[in-house]
Amino acid sequence: MQYRMIESEANAKYKRWKKLFESARFIKKEGATLAEGAHLIITMRQKGVKPEALLLREGGVSDEVAEIIEDFANDGVPCYVLANALYDKISPVEHGAGIMAEIKIMANELPHKERCDVLYLDGVQDPGNVGTLIRTAVAAGVSTIAASRESASLWSPKALRAAMGAHFSARLYENVEPEDLDAAFDAVCLAADARGGSDIYETADWEKTATVWMMGAEGPGLSEKALAVADRRLYIPIESGCESLNVGAAAAVCLFEQKRRRIAFKSLK
Amino acid sequence: MQYRMIESEANAKYKRWKKLFESARFIKKEGATLAEGAHLIITMRQKGVKPEALLLREGGVSDEVAEIIEDFANDGVPCYVLANALYDKISPVEHGAGIMAEIKIMANELPHKERCDVLYLDGVQDPGNVGTLIRTAVAAGVSTIAASRESASLWSPKALRAAMGAHFSARLYENVEPEDLDAAFDAVCLAADARGGSDIYETADWEKTATVWMMGAEGPGLSEKALAVADRRLYIPIESGCESLNVGAAAAVCLFEQKRRRIAFKSLK
Repeated sequence: MQYRMIESEANAKYKRWKKLFESARFIKKEGATLAEGAHLIITMRQKGVKPEALLLREGGVSDEVAEIIEDFANDGVPCYVLANALYDKISPVEHGAGIMAEIKIMANELPHKERCDVLYLDGVQDPGNVGTLIRTAVAAGVSTIAASRESASLWSPKALRAAMGAHFSARLYENVEPEDLDAAFDAVCLAADARGGSDIYETADWEKTATVWMMGAEGPGLSEKALAVADRRLYIPIESGCESLNVGAAAAVCLFEQKRRRIAFKSLK
Repeated sequence: MQYRMIESEANAKYKRWKKLFESARFIKKEGATLAEGAHLIITMRQKGVKPEALLLREGGVSDEVAEIIEDFANDGVPCYVLANALYDKISPVEHGAGIMAEIKIMANELPHKERCDVLYLDGVQDPGNVGTLIRTAVAAGVSTIAASRESASLWSPKALRAAMGAHFSARLYENVEPEDLDAAFDAVCLAADARGGSDIYETADWEKTATVWMMGAEGPGLSEKALAVADRRLYIPIESGCESLNVGAAAAVCLFEQKRRRIAFKSLK
């Protein structure tokens, strides 16, 4: 197996990776991003996703990962070894695993009136929250995720890291405005809204059709534009004195309540 | 109102705050921590928590916060204005609100066989996850939170920030080992365990008594010590191909399923 060593920040490939690490806009422009960590690399192999390149930290990697690198290298994936200081500057975690992959992002065209469950992110700002939301949705059986223009990139290295490989089991759509949802999906739009509507547990039958669960930004919650297209507003009953849940926790409650009801309905049949 | 300006990193007070920011051990030793952001300061006033000191960024604060500062200052809380560079070095967020408080941490003695619902953190590592877990627990009506020695500090600035004020509505216990739980709480120990046990939705009656929900570390999950004291092991049914949920999402699902069942039971009576 052949490695190419990169020791200078002036290296053209390195400069491009650094821009991918720093700029969501550049990710979009290039249609490429960085996925860090042994877990993501292992998931990629399982899902048949072939990276454009592997980036290794000079310090070395675990045996488990070495085997996968070997596999990918035999498959023609170029491998680069980066000086520690260079690697750490483009790693989304402080004590990273010492391996990352450059991958193509999968840009999807919105469907037309497709009947499927969707999670919609309306201006969610934090890349870690975005990743956790994708992970939770896929685990709850909702593998279609759409996000508004104001949301953080679904494909940032931090979001990939937090989603723990769920990206490779999902269909992701970016730059989707609330008013696009109706044409794209044959599903009721449910607004998760701490400010009002009806109690998610006391309200019957919202899970009986396909749903688009809409989750708002940390702090302000759902935008007026999103509330305007909602078929229903539902809230999670929380203790008085607390104002709201973290968006990741709220989505987990809503999407697993949906899953619970669907399971209960199936077992009745 | 009188402010004291701090411009040098060599200032003794500043050096102490920097250590509080950097070291969970120092937080424990001093019995003090830093709480950042307008929201936390406002919650403190609502809950009657009086800070030891207020730290303001030279750049200024919003009008809303200015009023609260005035109130606390009149109440004898010393106010310090920090040069921007100094402030940013001890702020848990990149674009902070420009205000933080030094507060005493509330160290509690474990009760004896108290009947109450508890969330137990068994080695949860990430301070942001710790904070989100506290926030979620309090919102779900579980205001007693205990954590093992291996868990990240419940009182780190990042945990305070992520909990959005929930600390001030909770009773928190640190350095609690799994084998201490039985003597402290009259409640069944429920292990949230992705690796086995029974389905949380299909298993009846686990919510009928007080519960200690045990959540494990990111990655490895619950320790052998924790599993050994569990009365029941429960798992959240997730889609095949996903291996687990983020610990914050898993806790949200478990604690709100508990809340849902309790509400449903009450409405039957």
